[in-house]
Amino acid sequence: MNTLETILENRLLNTWIRHFNRAPFQINNPHEADAELIEIEDDSSRLLAITIDTISEEISTGLYQTPFTMGWVTVMAGFSDLAAVGAVPLGIVTAISLEPNRSDSFKQGIAQGMSAACKRLGVFILGGDTNTGSMISLTGCAVGIVPKENKMIRIGCRPGDSVFISGPAGSGSALGLTRFAGIFENAFPENDYRPIARLKEGQLIRNYASCCMDTSDGVIATLDQLMRLNQVGFEIDMAPERFLHPAALALANTVNLPAWMMLAGHHGEFELIFTIPPKHIDPFLNYANGQNWMPFRIGKVIEKPTVKFLLNGKLEGIDTGRIRNLFIEVEGNIDAYIKGLNNILITF
Amino acid sequence: MNTLETILENRLLNTWIRHFNRAPFQINNPHEADAELIEIEDDSSRLLAITIDTISEEISTGLYQTPFTMGWVTVMAGFSDLAAVGAVPLGIVTAISLEPNRSDSFKQGIAQGMSAACKRLGVFILGGDTNTGSMISLTGCAVGIVPKENKMIRIGCRPGDSVFISGPAGSGSALGLTRFAGIFENAFPENDYRPIARLKEGQLIRNYASCCMDTSDGVIATLDQLMRLNQVGFEIDMAPERFLHPAALALANTVNLPAWMMLAGHHGEFELIFTIPPKHIDPFLNYANGQNWMPFRIGKVIEKPTVKFLLNGKLEGIDTGRIRNLFIEVEGNIDAYIKGLNNILITF
Repeated sequence: MNTLETILENRLLNTWIRHFNRAPFQINNPHEADAELIEIEDDSSRLLAITIDTISEEISTGLYQTPFTMGWVTVMAGFSDLAAVGAVPLGIVTAISLEPNRSDSFKQGIAQGMSAACKRLGVFILGGDTNTGSMISLTGCAVGIVPKENKMIRIGCRPGDSVFISGPAGSGSALGLTRFAGIFENAFPENDYRPIARLKEGQLIRNYASCCMDTSDGVIATLDQLMRLNQVGFEIDMAPERFLHPAALALANTVNLPAWMMLAGHHGEFELIFTIPPKHIDPFLNYANGQNWMPFRIGKVIEKPTVKFLLNGKLEGIDTGRIRNLFIEVEGNIDAYIKGLNNILITF
Repeated sequence: MNTLETILENRLLNTWIRHFNRAPFQINNPHEADAELIEIEDDSSRLLAITIDTISEEISTGLYQTPFTMGWVTVMAGFSDLAAVGAVPLGIVTAISLEPNRSDSFKQGIAQGMSAACKRLGVFILGGDTNTGSMISLTGCAVGIVPKENKMIRIGCRPGDSVFISGPAGSGSALGLTRFAGIFENAFPENDYRPIARLKEGQLIRNYASCCMDTSDGVIATLDQLMRLNQVGFEIDMAPERFLHPAALALANTVNLPAWMMLAGHHGEFELIFTIPPKHIDPFLNYANGQNWMPFRIGKVIEKPTVKFLLNGKLEGIDTGRIRNLFIEVEGNIDAYIKGLNNILITF
């Protein structure tokens, strides 16, 4: 089944959504965009883009251990959602909950991570709220503005469109694998995980793309969600090795995992996956290259709703829905997850 | 000392703020407004208002026990900040963290509380994020639009201005006292605590007021913060009994506490405290009464930075700064807090 509801995560979100009336001035339906798109009264040409993300499970599970990473990703996650709708950022507000006994240097680390991420993007923290509690919870709510005419959501790709990714993938999986698979310490150091929201690229892409979504949950989850939303398939005909982050590829080789598994972790790298219709390919690539940006053309949109990867030189369908649900079913146990991935590939 | 830094809470917030650069297009300085006010490119007449608030300590301490209240207040807290800057709301996004074992009916309760609050205000939840964790944490980020000319912040009142409150105060303290002072069960039932953000009133007030702030932390904390920000004082010459919520007053009488103490709890009721310059009083009151709204004129702005209440028929200064810090010092112990309040009054 290729419906949204096949995926546990979508179903969980829907149990909340069904209680709420939808704003009549909201452009996107649920699941349809990385950021919510809202009409602004008396402004016929622009939309407000707003998104909220909490970083807490990444901390409680031990995936992020340094406060700098926690602060950095809180900021990047918010702006990455804005990037995926092509928004010009206005800023971010943050809500910070910490245990009462956290040291000043720990708090400083979070603040420095947030501040460095803002500087890297040329954006600002506008305000915030602080609380104490029994766990670390960092929430960022980013806002921006999108021209109505060039709005970009997860919907709109058609068979024949080319599929792109904005940069190398797999650093999110690499960090997850290093932390949880008990392979060896620091195979992929946390300090190397410094994803950068593709804000400028998003604003460029919106002039050409038929759909766009960020890879905050990993490449495979992103392609799966786009498949369900658009009722199309994706043939990823570039070998995963060729668009993996070098450190992620090296790690896969070291631990003897197939390269595609570095796209299957539910912890991504905040790149953008987007599709470009044939007639826009040349102008898009010319413009992108003029900006010294080389996105990877990784495949094409096909009619049949399935996701195919080039595995050992052959295009093979992967049951991406089962992969996404598996992560919830194994409750985060990485050994069980990798075993499960192997089984999915064998039985598909 | 009447500086902002005298107050522990302000100091804590400043330790975060000093790490961040301020956005050049942000209108308000830190502490100066209930919601952040941001210039929008190519819109010379309007500002974006945005605010973020987490409800978690109110839950972990047992102040809120029903999920409906938790959801209701999450929504109201966000829109109350918008009300205090006179914004027209665009909507709210929410981030919900719950323990993994929470029942469906508990989740439904939160959703119903959020939904009911939105319906009461005529606003919408635009989107959100859900997580699991070791505690309940509900964050709301509300956005709205304010006309630049009529923007309203916490700064601007002058000696001679009248001080108003939008409605009866003390229900927040009443709930706190009932929960924590061990007086008797249900003296003030949680279901009676249903604060309503003063959105419409805020939009009316902004045409007349010299400053405004909501009472989310209680009346005394609000007056204290306004005193420090404006370097003026407040003479509250209406007896507290006359603008207390009837149930809060009844509770104070029952437990033999002076009425003013129902303004001293650090849990408020989301009314607005605002000041009106003499020349605007008549037009403001005419307009408000035409809308069937009767705010209380509770006092006036004075030159000397001190907060005076009418206690036993006499205007007495209250050390509001010590009251605010006391709450943090006693770490939420209500018995110690009430003892401390009595001492402050005696020794001042």
